Amino acid sequence: MTAAEWPGGASVVSGVGQTRGVRKIHVIGIGAGDPDQLTLQAVKALKSTDVFFILDKGEEKSDLVQLRRDILDAHIPDGAYRLVEARDPDRDRAAGGAAYSPAVGDWRSRRADIYEDLIARELGEDDSGAFLVWGDPALYDSTLGILEEILERGSVSFTYDVVPGISSVSALVARHRTGLNRVARPVQITTGRRLAEGFPEGVDDVVVMLDAHQTFEKYAGEDIDIYWGAYIGTPDEILISGPLGEVAPRITRVRAEARERKGWIMDTYLLRRRTRE
Amino acid sequence: MTAAEWPGGASVVSGVGQTRGVRKIHVIGIGAGDPDQLTLQAVKALKSTDVFFILDKGEEKSDLVQLRRDILDAHIPDGAYRLVEARDPDRDRAAGGAAYSPAVGDWRSRRADIYEDLIARELGEDDSGAFLVWGDPALYDSTLGILEEILERGSVSFTYDVVPGISSVSALVARHRTGLNRVARPVQITTGRRLAEGFPEGVDDVVVMLDAHQTFEKYAGEDIDIYWGAYIGTPDEILISGPLGEVAPRITRVRAEARERKGWIMDTYLLRRRTRE
Repeated sequence: MTAAEWPGGASVVSGVGQTRGVRKIHVIGIGAGDPDQLTLQAVKALKSTDVFFILDKGEEKSDLVQLRRDILDAHIPDGAYRLVEARDPDRDRAAGGAAYSPAVGDWRSRRADIYEDLIARELGEDDSGAFLVWGDPALYDSTLGILEEILERGSVSFTYDVVPGISSVSALVARHRTGLNRVARPVQITTGRRLAEGFPEGVDDVVVMLDAHQTFEKYAGEDIDIYWGAYIGTPDEILISGPLGEVAPRITRVRAEARERKGWIMDTYLLRRRTRE
Repeated sequence: MTAAEWPGGASVVSGVGQTRGVRKIHVIGIGAGDPDQLTLQAVKALKSTDVFFILDKGEEKSDLVQLRRDILDAHIPDGAYRLVEARDPDRDRAAGGAAYSPAVGDWRSRRADIYEDLIARELGEDDSGAFLVWGDPALYDSTLGILEEILERGSVSFTYDVVPGISSVSALVARHRTGLNRVARPVQITTGRRLAEGFPEGVDDVVVMLDAHQTFEKYAGEDIDIYWGAYIGTPDEILISGPLGEVAPRITRVRAEARERKGWIMDTYLLRRRTRE
């Protein structure tokens, strides 16, 4: 039984996107980098898509655009798909501290302008479109928020669904063969920026994403283990784990070298505070 | 480049399980209930497995055992696999409060006894075995801890790897078409027991698992939205979302009815505190 079928389900799952139009959009999580991390559900969604929207973040991440093309070529026979590429707006990376959220908001609205235009221009009334999202669309990805913003504007209508993907968080700990949480205890997923403000309260297991500044170094004097990974699931994968104080300098060095070599880096880590419990 | 290949990688990913023997074990995340949530990597791992270990938690969850058999039948041609079933030790559910962790520890050791025996008895030196884990083996699952405990005992040797799966957490928010976190903010994943002790510090987005007591009711007076789901991804799926104060009574009623009807329930929810930020 789906949400819409649940009796008396007026407040069951907002159905705004489900009634306005016939265009369909899949937001597809495609895993953290290993093409085999696609789910069968994602493969089915790819096969039922007419138009793929790919936003290029610029030269330095063209590896990632190519990886997405490879995924399409592997699963859609004879190149029987249409690919629409556009340039992502540059996020204002200079904005820091308190200005961060508004800058993100502006960037999201500019991105919504581009998406809105792409959908209106490239997606016929009976077509299905798809956005391919690295990892899981639920974690630090703006696609869902952008689609809701476009629907609220009301000038273009569509329905959409979400295909969950293997996040870089899941892929990280799988490769390190450890869990996210310890028995009966919580885990927090946060950003490098938040971690810079202090180690989160009430948790001893913290996953950090979007950290461009090796914020883990700040905690190198504490009794913490780190499980770090970059380019997880790809041929370039690097994994390092151990007591933070011991391995932090190596991670910093390896990370800088890899970033220099490839021109970009995507990395994630778990900090695990040693406790007597 | 994998961990073991990283130069000078003595402290790179503990390799204990990689050198002791030739038996191989896959710990395979099989998603939250929808068979299409298997990844291609999981399907490959299934196909390369000789012996599947399934531990039955007792009559009430035999649906879940059947669902796992269906997954095997769908992907392994002609039933060309060996299935070894055993009875899970009963967890001492009477143990509460401070006694919780030791009770879990005892249960895990008893489970390790069973797994150790199964591996030694049923898995030949050149065989591959697999444990199929609902959701993602990284979240509130004991399999990895149990395998490490067996390796530490030293009486049976094997290597193992982990195939990440779509967690019920990812599946929940995908079905509700929302994210786990809000822009640039953290999310915590915790247990019903922890939530009963208080709303976590420093986060406004909290995912709750293993909650047998509708602990969300405790926060019904606060400015919080809930995204709740049970049997996610299966034909019995139920989704309810809305302001907690409004929908909590309905969730409690629907949950009790479903549990009565099916004899068991697996549910998860996200609590999202409304903030001005």
